[in-house]
Amino acid sequence: MHPTPYISDNAFHFPLRVYYEDTDAAGVVYYANYLKFAERARTEWLRHLGFEQDAMMRETGLGFVVAHAEIHFRAPARLDDLVWIETRLQGTSKVRMSMRQTLRVAERPCAVLDVEIASVDRAFKPTRLPANLINAMTAFLS
Amino acid sequence: MHPTPYISDNAFHFPLRVYYEDTDAAGVVYYANYLKFAERARTEWLRHLGFEQDAMMRETGLGFVVAHAEIHFRAPARLDDLVWIETRLQGTSKVRMSMRQTLRVAERPCAVLDVEIASVDRAFKPTRLPANLINAMTAFLS
Amino acid sequence: MHPTPYISDNAFHFPLRVYYEDTDAAGVVYYANYLKFAERARTEWLRHLGFEQDAMMRETGLGFVVAHAEIHFRAPARLDDLVWIETRLQGTSKVRMSMRQTLRVAERPCAVLDVEIASVDRAFKPTRLPANLINAMTAFLS
Amino acid sequence: MHPTPYISDNAFHFPLRVYYEDTDAAGVVYYANYLKFAERARTEWLRHLGFEQDAMMRETGLGFVVAHAEIHFRAPARLDDLVWIETRLQGTSKVRMSMRQTLRVAERPCAVLDVEIASVDRAFKPTRLPANLINAMTAFLS
Repeated sequence: MHPTPYISDNAFHFPLRVYYEDTDAAGVVYYANYLKFAERARTEWLRHLGFEQDAMMRETGLGFVVAHAEIHFRAPARLDDLVWIETRLQGTSKVRMSMRQTLRVAERPCAVLDVEIASVDRAFKPTRLPANLINAMTAFLS
Repeated sequence: MHPTPYISDNAFHFPLRVYYEDTDAAGVVYYANYLKFAERARTEWLRHLGFEQDAMMRETGLGFVVAHAEIHFRAPARLDDLVWIETRLQGTSKVRMSMRQTLRVAERPCAVLDVEIASVDRAFKPTRLPANLINAMTAFLS
Repeated sequence: MHPTPYISDNAFHFPLRVYYEDTDAAGVVYYANYLKFAERARTEWLRHLGFEQDAMMRETGLGFVVAHAEIHFRAPARLDDLVWIETRLQGTSKVRMSMRQTLRVAERPCAVLDVEIASVDRAFKPTRLPANLINAMTAFLS
Repeated sequence: MHPTPYISDNAFHFPLRVYYEDTDAAGVVYYANYLKFAERARTEWLRHLGFEQDAMMRETGLGFVVAHAEIHFRAPARLDDLVWIETRLQGTSKVRMSMRQTLRVAERPCAVLDVEIASVDRAFKPTRLPANLINAMTAFLS
């Protein structure tokens, strides 16, 4: 009944529902909100792997920022739609991870997002990704 | 693993997770966002009972608006918190439903919201609640 | 041309424009966003009086939280509307301020918000309002 | 006192203030919200030229959607910052406009956004940009 996230084919699959708060007067999801959806999926993937961002920040001062994002808007999602987000790791470096995220409604792509995430310290300076996180993530590189 | 909504003791119980998008620079959930959370819970309760708002709007022109809301903020919810929302029907009239919604993190109340929802037509004029919706809802009046 | 805030008759008057981000699929401003609008007006009133919240937080650890809010939704605001917010102090105590905020489009009230704001320290414990802030504010008590 | 938008050097310059609603628990503007800021600037440029989107939609069914966006995040904006957005037309076709938008705080770039905007009808099908809009905009092509 209630869709749940899962891992398949090296990608993390996350479902969410479109509510009024996500839509705008054009009757569709407001364009900036796809970035919110995508971040929920990335957060849940990390949580699924055992990494809680709030705890990482408190314990080690490590945070993540999006350094670059490119998004193709393909077809609008609408109120009450169930959106599935496929998140796939494209590569990692010592301080960055790049991911492709595809948002779909009933198999139809709504938006495709390429995002580059940088690891930063409390002063927002680049810092190394933790080894255990890199190890956990690179298992998903196909 | 993944918490799912349920009905118990005449109330609808809905879980959600706090993401960065929900928080503000004070480190806690931004005050207006509790209203977003509450609306997700109300929407899912309706969906659970078989009522999809988008379909109702398209088919019959019926919509819901919040006419009045009163909210006590008790203790802040934070990033990564799992928030449970208990939604309880307080009463109905021909054109309105009143509900109390209690948001909790680990049993501790964050916010209590009393909300009055009016049924409106496409021109935002008050209109009668559908009989099948009233019937479905009043079963929850204790 | 560009409307600007002003003080008149002991109230602070603040204008803002409704953008797509503020609306929802019902074609009107999403209900939680009136609380965002109201907070912008309160912030600008404080700034107008010389109080910057970010600086207060950094220098003295003082923050403000909304403890209670009651909102009557009267008539929907829409895309491209110019909304004027009248903010009026209702009273103060050592740790709280209460305000009434009326949001209008072309003189017609959209929403009326009664809000109680508490002064807190970094741990979100109630703390005294600064004397210079109380002095500046109570000048507006009619 | 209150900064106002202006046109200079073929670009539209729009100011806005960062409020709590725009920030997140990392203490900075949440990444998706730069897209909200950018859309406010585009909307105000159109309004400045005499085009109101709500009226265009009602009268001719014409709407705008973002088809593609690329954003470099350079340095975080923070609570109470005054953000200036420079919006510059890069090119037009019969159905699209491309713009570069640079967001700055005190001359320092926060984010650079390249955005492609498509003209659509009520069914979200591509449709021609109105001739008077193209004429008004291309005057800004340097």
